Amino acid sequence: MFRTNTCGELRLGDAGRTVTLAGWVQRVRKMGGMTFLDLRDRYGITQIVFESSDNEALNEAANHLGREYVVQVSGTVAERTSKNPHLPTGDIEIIARELRVLNPSEVPPFTIEDESDGGDDLRMRYRYLDLRRTPVRRNLELRHRMTMEVRRYLDSKGFLEIETPMLVGSTPEGARDFVVPSRMNPGQFYALPQSPQTLKQLLMVSGMDRYFQIVKCFRDEDLRADRQPEFTQIDCEMSFVEQNDIIELFEGMAKHLFKTIRGIELTEPFLRMSWADAMKYYGSDKPDLRFGMKFVELMDVLKGYGFGVFDNAEYIGGIVAKGAAHYTRKQLDELTEYVKRPQIGAKGLVYARVGEDGTVKSSVDKFYTQEVLRAMADKMGAEAGDLILIISGDDTMRARKQLCELRLEMGRRLGLRDKDKFACLWVVDFPMFEWSDEEQRLMAMHHPFTHPKDEDIPMLDTDPAAVRADAYDMVINGVEVGGGSIRIHNAELQAKMFEILGFTPEKAQEQFGFLMNAFKYGAPPHGGLAYGLDRWVSLFAGLDSIRDCIAFPKNNSGRDVMLDAPAPLDQKQLDELNLAVELPEA
Amino acid sequence: MFRTNTCGELRLGDAGRTVTLAGWVQRVRKMGGMTFLDLRDRYGITQIVFESSDNEALNEAANHLGREYVVQVSGTVAERTSKNPHLPTGDIEIIARELRVLNPSEVPPFTIEDESDGGDDLRMRYRYLDLRRTPVRRNLELRHRMTMEVRRYLDSKGFLEIETPMLVGSTPEGARDFVVPSRMNPGQFYALPQSPQTLKQLLMVSGMDRYFQIVKCFRDEDLRADRQPEFTQIDCEMSFVEQNDIIELFEGMAKHLFKTIRGIELTEPFLRMSWADAMKYYGSDKPDLRFGMKFVELMDVLKGYGFGVFDNAEYIGGIVAKGAAHYTRKQLDELTEYVKRPQIGAKGLVYARVGEDGTVKSSVDKFYTQEVLRAMADKMGAEAGDLILIISGDDTMRARKQLCELRLEMGRRLGLRDKDKFACLWVVDFPMFEWSDEEQRLMAMHHPFTHPKDEDIPMLDTDPAAVRADAYDMVINGVEVGGGSIRIHNAELQAKMFEILGFTPEKAQEQFGFLMNAFKYGAPPHGGLAYGLDRWVSLFAGLDSIRDCIAFPKNNSGRDVMLDAPAPLDQKQLDELNLAVELPEA
Repeated sequence: MFRTNTCGELRLGDAGRTVTLAGWVQRVRKMGGMTFLDLRDRYGITQIVFESSDNEALNEAANHLGREYVVQVSGTVAERTSKNPHLPTGDIEIIARELRVLNPSEVPPFTIEDESDGGDDLRMRYRYLDLRRTPVRRNLELRHRMTMEVRRYLDSKGFLEIETPMLVGSTPEGARDFVVPSRMNPGQFYALPQSPQTLKQLLMVSGMDRYFQIVKCFRDEDLRADRQPEFTQIDCEMSFVEQNDIIELFEGMAKHLFKTIRGIELTEPFLRMSWADAMKYYGSDKPDLRFGMKFVELMDVLKGYGFGVFDNAEYIGGIVAKGAAHYTRKQLDELTEYVKRPQIGAKGLVYARVGEDGTVKSSVDKFYTQEVLRAMADKMGAEAGDLILIISGDDTMRARKQLCELRLEMGRRLGLRDKDKFACLWVVDFPMFEWSDEEQRLMAMHHPFTHPKDEDIPMLDTDPAAVRADAYDMVINGVEVGGGSIRIHNAELQAKMFEILGFTPEKAQEQFGFLMNAFKYGAPPHGGLAYGLDRWVSLFAGLDSIRDCIAFPKNNSGRDVMLDAPAPLDQKQLDELNLAVELPEA
Repeated sequence: MFRTNTCGELRLGDAGRTVTLAGWVQRVRKMGGMTFLDLRDRYGITQIVFESSDNEALNEAANHLGREYVVQVSGTVAERTSKNPHLPTGDIEIIARELRVLNPSEVPPFTIEDESDGGDDLRMRYRYLDLRRTPVRRNLELRHRMTMEVRRYLDSKGFLEIETPMLVGSTPEGARDFVVPSRMNPGQFYALPQSPQTLKQLLMVSGMDRYFQIVKCFRDEDLRADRQPEFTQIDCEMSFVEQNDIIELFEGMAKHLFKTIRGIELTEPFLRMSWADAMKYYGSDKPDLRFGMKFVELMDVLKGYGFGVFDNAEYIGGIVAKGAAHYTRKQLDELTEYVKRPQIGAKGLVYARVGEDGTVKSSVDKFYTQEVLRAMADKMGAEAGDLILIISGDDTMRARKQLCELRLEMGRRLGLRDKDKFACLWVVDFPMFEWSDEEQRLMAMHHPFTHPKDEDIPMLDTDPAAVRADAYDMVINGVEVGGGSIRIHNAELQAKMFEILGFTPEKAQEQFGFLMNAFKYGAPPHGGLAYGLDRWVSLFAGLDSIRDCIAFPKNNSGRDVMLDAPAPLDQKQLDELNLAVELPEA
């Protein structure tokens, strides 16, 4: 060992001990005849003192240390005269007797401080230096503790962690697969799994009863800010259960994590909200319930007074921003511009302020009497000093989504989205299908293995779009951290599902024959869910992006700029794989 | 929940309780007016009784159940009249009141019993049924418990589990990579990692101090019986350590696993043996020390008596098989044929028996006097009743390897390789390089990041082939379960190593520039090791192949016969990836 102790563990009780530490030079300060060195490792920072009166050469050597040099120091632990209460080791310092440079360092391209001067690109290129920064390292420590606690909890509930293969078959339904050419099977390809969905179902058929896996999954999608081509799931499945069993067990896991990781004891059951209600009251299947601003529908109040926009609308709904009546015209114009951005696409925004005297002043006063506006304010529960914001549209779902964006923006502006406050709920009763304009057919909203609600099964033949599923999402602070469903375990029902989704029997057999075949040999009722680990860690870490809880993330082009991957292959490798690259002409 | 209890938990104390169980029909037996159903799940088997006098229809329904039907049964727990001491639930049975078929089953293609009638191919095709068999399921349960204990141990030692990426860059040095075409970066490819070696070293540069990961790795090799294209490593790395620190910490982990998983308390330190001694005394860098039969070199005893084979040999060595003097001519001929097989390649085998009177009778008696033969027997420590087996050759290493195979075969024949006995050791002081006839250059024996022994560094310039490395393997029962090394942490030494390995500076920079660059910014001394999880589980489970501790293994052609992967891609997918398949002409 190059050390007797880490840089984070020595305390006043160690005074007088002879110790050896090793770590990185955080800072060197010369003060008169003394040199102070802050020595850093993963565990903390310890101050080292070199006294020139004591050893001139040693003091001189310390003065030549550069930032991020790796050094080994031996000396005696001593009580500090001026203690540093911000540092766990702040009561002591090491009076140095020996110094050895284990490895020098060039000047790093950015400072290794909590707030670095490195931009995103530079930090990613030198990610190994970025990871030395305390806030980044803490995210990885948090991630480690979360996965340890997840495993501890699931193990205590009888779950077995079972590894499923990474080299599987390609299933073009859904997102794009990453594929892997097989040299031993020329012209054939494996795919990397988008999730172990069908494999975990096979494990249920095999009687494993309770399975989990913390596992890498892959999706070749065009990357948005917060997507990675490879991501990590906490993937779980159970047999002989109904929806409520799964919800209760995994709510227990969430509470265990809140308690052990964040020190928050959640005693109440999580709210459960139907998908229909989530859409109706929050315009989202993952409502952020850290704050209210529930939608109030206003069709009955505001229609028929000659305001064409509302009179022709299929939907009119509003929210109340408590105490925001003071918003200036400029602020309201900003909000209007916000909802009119192409990503949101509202045509406009109607607002009304409730004055201190209770009168309501709106942007559409010329169409409405004070009586109507008061009725509106009353229906919305708006009080003196509140601001009312209204969105309308000719497509209810679209208008609700616009109002949802407005609500989230107002929550942000009013400081209601505190990262240290957590609002958890289950969204349940999802629709089984959603219509795809692109594909011109029904698509599975969750996936094709989801079990319809028993009472809705007759509608599969008559009105499939109205069928609800035994599907559920866990939502925290507007983030879908996990989701799952009861699965189909019956070969005929599964075949019918593929039929509704537009598969020919041959295509269904080709792609999912292994699963439908397995269902013929005694498949138990089963269901499960999967959590997005990256998202959940980000949420607990208070991060805006999942990237900073991943050791070596990829950028928005799917590149690892540190490794400079992907890259062209040698011709020899391509030949062995029987592949030719055919680039489109420039 | 479809059950109140599992099929493994009810005991005599539960008698009188009303319970509901769910599981698979293992067996139905009709005896007079009663029907006995063995109901199975992951947790055990419980006997259910249907009495026709009690409920004729229910009894009738039970008689129609087929093997592997999934059923739910409610009834009352009762004490059995004839108890089954072999079953934890053998004191009780359930008097059935209700029976519900949750899913019928076709007749499975093989029996779901400990000893199945299914051949390997059939079992793999229906792996989800094969996994229902108790011995196969137990392997996966063992694997789960081992990984839980590994994590528990390493977490307690301050290790962080950190996920490294699966989509990395290709490094053609070493085995072949599996590659993944990038759609977003046309003409470019990721590679799947053969191990996270360089990434974990970067984590050390980043100050993570103690890292581990249980992680999938990939090698596109032609598969031998006991290789899989994807396999799992327990991958570990530590900073500020020397070889002995790593050995002690991971010996502790091995002992923890032996204790918690196998109930074996290993109190002694593991033997440490130099690579040179392992080769000299056992002809292998992974000797099986469950038994002796140490090699004895016989050049000085047997050379120069006119037996041409020995007189011209560069190596003569033998082993003593205790008490095997009774071996017949037929058995000895079998052994001779065994070592002459092309995979082993010995030219022949010389043997000698030590009689009860101490006289030695050999297959080469005409060349040697009894005095010489006695001297040989004495040198070898052979006693009355022992069999001496001798191999010679004109290449020492080759002859030793042949003698090693003979030793292992004799150990097997004499029943000395008990699967429930464990002999652990560290093989240390590996050579840094080995000569490759194929490549006509030195290759790294471990990998190019291995640190040479400090005292041997001067020989890098003068006699690189003689340089030893700070490398070590953990060997149990002749299986290399893990191995590792102290790594180079100095950019110049790393560059020198690549030079010796025949890399141009440009090539080294292109492939490993990210690592050598990182070493310039304060890399700490570090080292680590990696265990092959599949092998270790197999060893603890007493399996002959790693396949049965993997849920969904691939066959020797790298195929998953259950999923039927790999498979050809749709043309659309190939086009999106800018790829064309060019198969060689038939």
